[in-house]
Amino acid sequence: MKIISTPLALKTYLKSIDKSIGFVPTMGALHEGHISLIKEAKKSNEFVVVSIFVNPTQFAKGEDLLKYPSDELRDKKICEMSGIDVLFYPKAKDIYGEDEVSVLAPKIRAYILEGFTRPSHFNGVLSVVMKLLNIVNPSKAYFGKKDAQQLMLIELMVKQLFMDVEIIAVDTVRENDGLAMSSRNVYLSVDEREDALCISRSLNLASSMISKGIMDVESITEAMREFLTPLEIYYVEILSREFEKIPQVTIGKSIILVEVKVGTTRLLDNIWL
Amino acid sequence: MKIISTPLALKTYLKSIDKSIGFVPTMGALHEGHISLIKEAKKSNEFVVVSIFVNPTQFAKGEDLLKYPSDELRDKKICEMSGIDVLFYPKAKDIYGEDEVSVLAPKIRAYILEGFTRPSHFNGVLSVVMKLLNIVNPSKAYFGKKDAQQLMLIELMVKQLFMDVEIIAVDTVRENDGLAMSSRNVYLSVDEREDALCISRSLNLASSMISKGIMDVESITEAMREFLTPLEIYYVEILSREFEKIPQVTIGKSIILVEVKVGTTRLLDNIWL
Repeated sequence: MKIISTPLALKTYLKSIDKSIGFVPTMGALHEGHISLIKEAKKSNEFVVVSIFVNPTQFAKGEDLLKYPSDELRDKKICEMSGIDVLFYPKAKDIYGEDEVSVLAPKIRAYILEGFTRPSHFNGVLSVVMKLLNIVNPSKAYFGKKDAQQLMLIELMVKQLFMDVEIIAVDTVRENDGLAMSSRNVYLSVDEREDALCISRSLNLASSMISKGIMDVESITEAMREFLTPLEIYYVEILSREFEKIPQVTIGKSIILVEVKVGTTRLLDNIWL
Repeated sequence: MKIISTPLALKTYLKSIDKSIGFVPTMGALHEGHISLIKEAKKSNEFVVVSIFVNPTQFAKGEDLLKYPSDELRDKKICEMSGIDVLFYPKAKDIYGEDEVSVLAPKIRAYILEGFTRPSHFNGVLSVVMKLLNIVNPSKAYFGKKDAQQLMLIELMVKQLFMDVEIIAVDTVRENDGLAMSSRNVYLSVDEREDALCISRSLNLASSMISKGIMDVESITEAMREFLTPLEIYYVEILSREFEKIPQVTIGKSIILVEVKVGTTRLLDNIWL
């Protein structure tokens, strides 16, 4: 595995590679979810690039940028053992300059759900993803379904700006008890870890209602909200795959999204119906 | 010459071409300035694509979008006679959708000069240039030096977002009497056409002061302002090539920019020192 730290060095190196490139962008603190992205990338590409970059522009003031979990040695070992070809590990100054051109997220779909309480978040996400995609120029790039709104917005960016890359959505990986894998799970105390199980269980509750033929969005989300009490709920929504409001669930075309605060930690999860 | 009207058809066609592509994006109303861009593109590329698209997002309400000069037949004939390979002639609905991801121009350098009186202008310019560059994927793209701030911002976008294209700056073409070629010159009455000559003459005045050793920015711009009276002046500035304020002209590193209103028409010009 080659470790490269500047965009120019990576671009130059990758131009000498005549292979289909799969790309997995991450913010480090790697877990089974990331490993599953890497496995998917290795399946369909001759050459796999992983990036580790905790992107400052997607954190607002007061968010957890400074304490975001990081373990460089462990992350590098996981990449090495996953058999990737290149690890891109840039510094913020290699990615961002002064008075910059950036990407502006869409006015509606980036300001609901996550974007409602984190209004500049997706500008930062889309800007860094655009930069990374342009540096690596992969055939395929891999993103987790757990960050469903992020995934939808990246697919939108690629389509609307006519970018040349295929975005591959990869299923969420869960702990044995159902908790969705997240780098932020390390923030949870033992009690909070237990409380957090409500999230995936509320999604299971919704699934079982739907399997009984209850398709009404309001009834399902109300039951989920009740189940999630007393956690602080950011949102519980059932939307179309295009993230538009719907009155009824349609199998194959809907998504249930939930985010709550457990202690001081925001945790999100979703299921694609 | 092949005429193609949708992004997908153009992308598909260009992928079958194994040649270096030169790209000249225009808003139509073609004149000698555009022809000079095409000639430069033909010199250094095996295959030349020209686009004609009057980009709605770079016009604010009340600007001249609806009356922007257009002559489809004449423009197509000029492209044909210039020996280009593909003319891309899309409709707005092929380029823009709903609730879109777009490009956000830099907060400082896009809000001086042109951007001071047209605050959303460069967001629209950069968004459409990004889309067009991604659709055509050229080795080189050609822009006129007359729109100096636009050129600087496009170069900035390509660099900061790590895009894979070389931006080529082409010299301004002038009428015999010195007026810079512009699609908007057709708006001018005979008297206004005469008044407009002040613009290039004010730049000549600046040049001759500099050739006499007067390098002080304030003295030169003051003399230009006096010369341009009684036209309505939007700006007269001498800046570094990075568009930063400077006290003294440095040959090879400075640019003089001027924009005035003649009748109801905005006209701009500049010289690169």
